[in-house]
Amino acid sequence: MKKDKDSKSQPELVADWESLFRVFIRPEGQASRATLIKYMDPILYGLNDFLKTHVGITEAVSLKELSKNFTDTIICDNPEKKLADVITCLIKEIAPYAVNVASPYFVGHMTSAIPFFMVHLKTIVAALNQNVVKLETSKVVSVVEKQVVAKIHRMIYDKKESFYQKHVQNTDTTLGVFVEGGTTANLTAMWAARNAKFPPKKGFNGIESEGIAAAYRAYDVDRCVILVSRRGHYSLRKAGGVLGIGNQNIIALDTDKKNRVDLSCLKRTITRLKKENLKTCILAIVGIAGATETGSVDPLEKLAKICAENNAHFHVDAAWGGPTLFSKKYKHLIKGIQLADSVTMDGHKQFYMPMSCGMLYLKKPHTLDVIAYHANYVNRMGSVDLGIKTLSGSREANSLILDSALKIMGRKGYALLIDHGIETAAAFAKEIKRRDLFELITPPVLNILTYRVCPPKIRKKLAVANDTERQKINQQLNKVNRRLQRIQREAGYSFVSRTTLLQNNNPDDAVVVLRSVIMNPMTTIEILNEILDEQEKIFDTKLKDLLE
Amino acid sequence: MKKDKDSKSQPELVADWESLFRVFIRPEGQASRATLIKYMDPILYGLNDFLKTHVGITEAVSLKELSKNFTDTIICDNPEKKLADVITCLIKEIAPYAVNVASPYFVGHMTSAIPFFMVHLKTIVAALNQNVVKLETSKVVSVVEKQVVAKIHRMIYDKKESFYQKHVQNTDTTLGVFVEGGTTANLTAMWAARNAKFPPKKGFNGIESEGIAAAYRAYDVDRCVILVSRRGHYSLRKAGGVLGIGNQNIIALDTDKKNRVDLSCLKRTITRLKKENLKTCILAIVGIAGATETGSVDPLEKLAKICAENNAHFHVDAAWGGPTLFSKKYKHLIKGIQLADSVTMDGHKQFYMPMSCGMLYLKKPHTLDVIAYHANYVNRMGSVDLGIKTLSGSREANSLILDSALKIMGRKGYALLIDHGIETAAAFAKEIKRRDLFELITPPVLNILTYRVCPPKIRKKLAVANDTERQKINQQLNKVNRRLQRIQREAGYSFVSRTTLLQNNNPDDAVVVLRSVIMNPMTTIEILNEILDEQEKIFDTKLKDLLE
Repeated sequence: MKKDKDSKSQPELVADWESLFRVFIRPEGQASRATLIKYMDPILYGLNDFLKTHVGITEAVSLKELSKNFTDTIICDNPEKKLADVITCLIKEIAPYAVNVASPYFVGHMTSAIPFFMVHLKTIVAALNQNVVKLETSKVVSVVEKQVVAKIHRMIYDKKESFYQKHVQNTDTTLGVFVEGGTTANLTAMWAARNAKFPPKKGFNGIESEGIAAAYRAYDVDRCVILVSRRGHYSLRKAGGVLGIGNQNIIALDTDKKNRVDLSCLKRTITRLKKENLKTCILAIVGIAGATETGSVDPLEKLAKICAENNAHFHVDAAWGGPTLFSKKYKHLIKGIQLADSVTMDGHKQFYMPMSCGMLYLKKPHTLDVIAYHANYVNRMGSVDLGIKTLSGSREANSLILDSALKIMGRKGYALLIDHGIETAAAFAKEIKRRDLFELITPPVLNILTYRVCPPKIRKKLAVANDTERQKINQQLNKVNRRLQRIQREAGYSFVSRTTLLQNNNPDDAVVVLRSVIMNPMTTIEILNEILDEQEKIFDTKLKDLLE
Repeated sequence: MKKDKDSKSQPELVADWESLFRVFIRPEGQASRATLIKYMDPILYGLNDFLKTHVGITEAVSLKELSKNFTDTIICDNPEKKLADVITCLIKEIAPYAVNVASPYFVGHMTSAIPFFMVHLKTIVAALNQNVVKLETSKVVSVVEKQVVAKIHRMIYDKKESFYQKHVQNTDTTLGVFVEGGTTANLTAMWAARNAKFPPKKGFNGIESEGIAAAYRAYDVDRCVILVSRRGHYSLRKAGGVLGIGNQNIIALDTDKKNRVDLSCLKRTITRLKKENLKTCILAIVGIAGATETGSVDPLEKLAKICAENNAHFHVDAAWGGPTLFSKKYKHLIKGIQLADSVTMDGHKQFYMPMSCGMLYLKKPHTLDVIAYHANYVNRMGSVDLGIKTLSGSREANSLILDSALKIMGRKGYALLIDHGIETAAAFAKEIKRRDLFELITPPVLNILTYRVCPPKIRKKLAVANDTERQKINQQLNKVNRRLQRIQREAGYSFVSRTTLLQNNNPDDAVVVLRSVIMNPMTTIEILNEILDEQEKIFDTKLKDLLE
């Protein structure tokens, strides 16, 4: 939004009670009620037009240039703009410089188009403005939340009907919680796992009360560790840091050729930890169902067994892959998820909900008892307030959106989206392999894959190179791929992201890859081919020389 | 939502690609674009009607009864309902049983009516669906966020123009962050304070990396404490638990007659801690600017001095009271806030934004460096990604709402709301004192007050009672006030909340009080009188006998 000196000096804009009343009173007469629609009209239409024409992350104006217009830091005394002008400005001056995550050419991140009705549902949530922290500010919405939580729990764990009848509306038990996102869900799971390991006992009030140092003393422990493969989401390290465990104690395990956790490495690590120091406590082992970078899925059943043998909490981070359960055709890809003590899922990923919505599910209905908090004015002991067992306090009723979406889409509707992503990613992988310029680095298990530019001539060299030569060539390729991604992003037609993977778990073999996430149902193989065409062209015209 | 066997068996509802496409393709022609409005129409009008007629938390149907209709836990294969029916159902079957937080008679919690344009702004945020964790999914929105953060920072800290020019769009520094709510903001502040106390040094990688137990060893510390008055929000205890400090180490200080932290108690506590054990580290002292229960404000300037003397982080929890700064007339009530190292504010409280939006502001632009996280595919070192220094990962662009609201309302518009709340609360207090039946327990400093039913006869008895007698009488009064609040709530015409306060900091003198929060500009003294009238009537007809 540019500094708009003119509008600031418009004499008619003053803050007064009359205008305040107008925005707080809900319009009553038919004519004045039309105001509500009058303002919604340009939002729905205007954004629609812009999102349609503006594809990708255009860099027509650089960020640096752009940010020059956003340096005024004084809040004006009087209104700067009328509502209609603010909306126009958002549509004409902000939206064009936002990122069109809804474009089918935007295949770089886990954010995509959402069904248009999600916007309507979010509007309902905002208009009701319920606060789900407590019953007194949400009432029926808390009840709806418990129901939809039970629905997803059932999709994961498939317990008996009697189990769900007992717990669906039980105010003492918790099958799952809505949180802000996968990060908070993972954090909450590790928090519960930590507390369960150091419960109160004679002379010790429990870790939540006395803290980690006291807990370690009480239980004669030196450190806690959490084990997860290198593909684990960075939020797990963050959770380790926040929870006082120390993020260096989130131990990154090697991966096998398919980017799944290397089970022999896991077993060796456990043996080593036990041998080295009997005072190391394995808090949790985390399995990944849809790694952020590669979409890979860990062998969950085998992990569950190892967790049981080592008395470790088994958490599955299915922030991405969880909704694969909707698909009868592909749900076997994440089999074993039902063995997890806790499961992270993200509403704003493959449930196609708007930002920000995460969820945590618990196999056992009392798992979150160890993180409960009460106060005198809210979340009273024995109340049905949903805020008792969540990290956050006040929060919006995103459960209404999920509940409605399940009714509108049906399981099969979501399954169509899942199937499309998996099958389109498979077709894309085939196309990448077919083209000479590219090397498929991680074939898709779900709907994420990585690849890189690596011309045949270079590939031949790599095949016969020794360690030093290979690393040198990879460094050149990394430079090319980094630049390629950037040039394509800045051109603004399409977007793939990039990340860095280790080959053979060797830090000296860091390889920069292009990463595609296929979740938008409008993303077809034709569009993906166009994206490859563009990359070939960029390479030929701008980057080829770097590899001579 | 009742089980609707009929709609489930409607043969025409099937999940297929054709219907999927319809919800993902943005309608193009003028006719089909009207669809977007067609569905928005009943939302804006329908909810409007219901929120108008449905006042308070009616218990016409009990929660238990209600929850019986929400026990079905199977996700149907095919769509259960059409979008139009889902919307109708939300409006006709859910909204009436939600809580009308927008009613001017709802004065019990910190959730109230919001200006109608907030709903429109939230719709824009949902339609753009930007993810502010990283630039690649938000671009200009990250820039807008940095700007609006600087605006609020300036309102709090009022640094020089050159300071803001240097930092407003500086990608290396952070004047503040948007979070989910006050709980996350307080947690983030304590997290940063904890990490700053145990930085890396020779032979030690820092607390975030090695964990608390190792940090205490490295710095020869036995425990950390955080000091805050009894009026401190429960999220501070939660933060202590989550961060591994232990929630019993969040030490609740006594309060003075005005519910502010008792400074002599604070000083005594510090002296005692130092004397008892030289190995106790005072991590932070928290001042409250608008206590949740009583609205009281701690002597912030004096706290700042004590923090400086003891090398403790000074955090101010202004989740509630922060926006008092908008009012030139009343901002002196929270003077000293500019001395805080960090300040919590809630967007969904007195900024009148929809759920859920909190913020944390930092005096020094590098304070959050100690909680930074990076990954290969996002939040790369040196990038401008805003997710580097937030607890959460993905999150929605609530900053767009605040930025727009500031433009629409102007500082003065917000000031009118603040002034109205403070002045109406003062008038309400006067009225409570005027009426015989009531005893004003905590007079309002800002716009929150507490009182209780305490008939003159009982008050006389209390005045001459010994300890045992007084406690017995208070217990009877507690019962009456608890019931009164409940009866009024269930009648559904109006709502005040209740909490329990200690008189003279004595746990044996726990007093149940009625609590009013005056934030809705439509809440007038006339309405508050009606609420008192109703309470008098309830007492006379239903509760009087309990005090005979």
